[in-house]
Amino acid sequence: MSPSRVPESGKRGYIVPIGGRIGDHRILSRFTQLCGGSQARIAIIPTASSDPDTGAHYEQSFRALGVRSTVTLPIESRADCEKPDILAAIEAADGVFLTGGTQLRLSTTLGGTPVARILRRRNAAGQHVAGTSAGAAFLSEHMIAFGDEGPTPRQGMVTLAPGLGLTNRILVDQHFRQRDRLGRLLMALSLNPFAVGIGLDEDTAAFIDGDDVAEIHGTGAITLVDPSQVEYSSADHTPPNEPVTLIGVRLHILTQGATYNLHTREAGVPQEVAERR
Amino acid sequence: MSPSRVPESGKRGYIVPIGGRIGDHRILSRFTQLCGGSQARIAIIPTASSDPDTGAHYEQSFRALGVRSTVTLPIESRADCEKPDILAAIEAADGVFLTGGTQLRLSTTLGGTPVARILRRRNAAGQHVAGTSAGAAFLSEHMIAFGDEGPTPRQGMVTLAPGLGLTNRILVDQHFRQRDRLGRLLMALSLNPFAVGIGLDEDTAAFIDGDDVAEIHGTGAITLVDPSQVEYSSADHTPPNEPVTLIGVRLHILTQGATYNLHTREAGVPQEVAERR
Repeated sequence: MSPSRVPESGKRGYIVPIGGRIGDHRILSRFTQLCGGSQARIAIIPTASSDPDTGAHYEQSFRALGVRSTVTLPIESRADCEKPDILAAIEAADGVFLTGGTQLRLSTTLGGTPVARILRRRNAAGQHVAGTSAGAAFLSEHMIAFGDEGPTPRQGMVTLAPGLGLTNRILVDQHFRQRDRLGRLLMALSLNPFAVGIGLDEDTAAFIDGDDVAEIHGTGAITLVDPSQVEYSSADHTPPNEPVTLIGVRLHILTQGATYNLHTREAGVPQEVAERR
Repeated sequence: MSPSRVPESGKRGYIVPIGGRIGDHRILSRFTQLCGGSQARIAIIPTASSDPDTGAHYEQSFRALGVRSTVTLPIESRADCEKPDILAAIEAADGVFLTGGTQLRLSTTLGGTPVARILRRRNAAGQHVAGTSAGAAFLSEHMIAFGDEGPTPRQGMVTLAPGLGLTNRILVDQHFRQRDRLGRLLMALSLNPFAVGIGLDEDTAAFIDGDDVAEIHGTGAITLVDPSQVEYSSADHTPPNEPVTLIGVRLHILTQGATYNLHTREAGVPQEVAERR
């Protein structure tokens, strides 16, 4: 499930993980704008959720923002992921929105199906894909399936699973501050310090563009964990439940308007702050 | 850590996971042949092992097969993965061999470093990479870090971590029959049924060529688990330690000379058997 190739002349669409509990629609409004404003065709995948009204709820939110074409895709089983009308709706969408719920519902239902393949191919060709909470966790190649709370990484506290694979540069965690998840994100990164950890507070999103530059939007912050300078991790020999040694982690707290380049691993302050200096 | 692009005119090198406890050198002899026989330059990465003689042991094996140029790369820390002489030796090798030991030693030491990047780039450009036991587990994008024994998949019995990422089409388990690992391979695949599970017996290898066709060599068998037709997985809601429901798994037992195409998901019988029919 690795990212599809971006066509020669094109640019990958945005990848937008959101930390859950979206507030005043600032985030959805930015997503709508990217997808073409009132002309946008937005498809909603409510598979993660057990609440049958989830799709309708987001359709209403997007319609309140002026979007005329919204559709909820009733994907409940792996067989649904083969249905021509569902595949056609994804193909035609300018933007796809994955709701919250359980991320393993997404991976067990969509994993290895035509729906997952089309999402990767269309995103590589310019379609924008957002996900909130479970939907955010699922976007990347490596997904945090579940784990324990607490700020200290402890051996075995986090369970990874393969995700959708739109990108593999990031490892996402959500409801970050609200559920005390720094430890499990650090633990996940300590297993193989190659990806960038993105801990998303609620009502906060990273808008990652086709050049892999993320811009932060929302009322909370993003805790960005860069393990590229990690000198040492004890994850290969720490016994179960014991704390893991991790030396050389770089950490950034980024808020509204700040940016982060996933290639150069450089953070940028919001424009208005930079100008005031 | 996704696979590097294969250059336009070239072909990816072989990826060779081996199940551990290599016997009469049939497997190493085939690997040597691929790498150029006596002219081959073979670099050994003993990082997974805690035994300081591991590299020398394999150098001796390859030399006994006529290989004149072998080198053991002393990679013990993340800092070692930046050393110019080590990177140059990998660059120059026709084949790289990763020894057994602990796969998390490999991912915590090599993950996100220039060594991992060069291995992916050179393999995409034709270099052959083999790994035995822990070395085999590490080759793919998704790696089984550790887990419990037994034939039935149970929730939480397996821990995944990001691996080297030469390919993401496979999920490897090793010492397969000897350590009763079908359950943990099924559990790992049930989280996201997209990859092909390769359960390698000891002294048995899958030689995966640049077209993603695997050929089996060795004295044991490979248990190949294809989840592409899985209709249902309960992994999203099964409680910890309880057995997981998984409907529609295809399973093949493949021995010496048999093939498997990772794209079409078709198995082929050994040539001599086919001719006798």
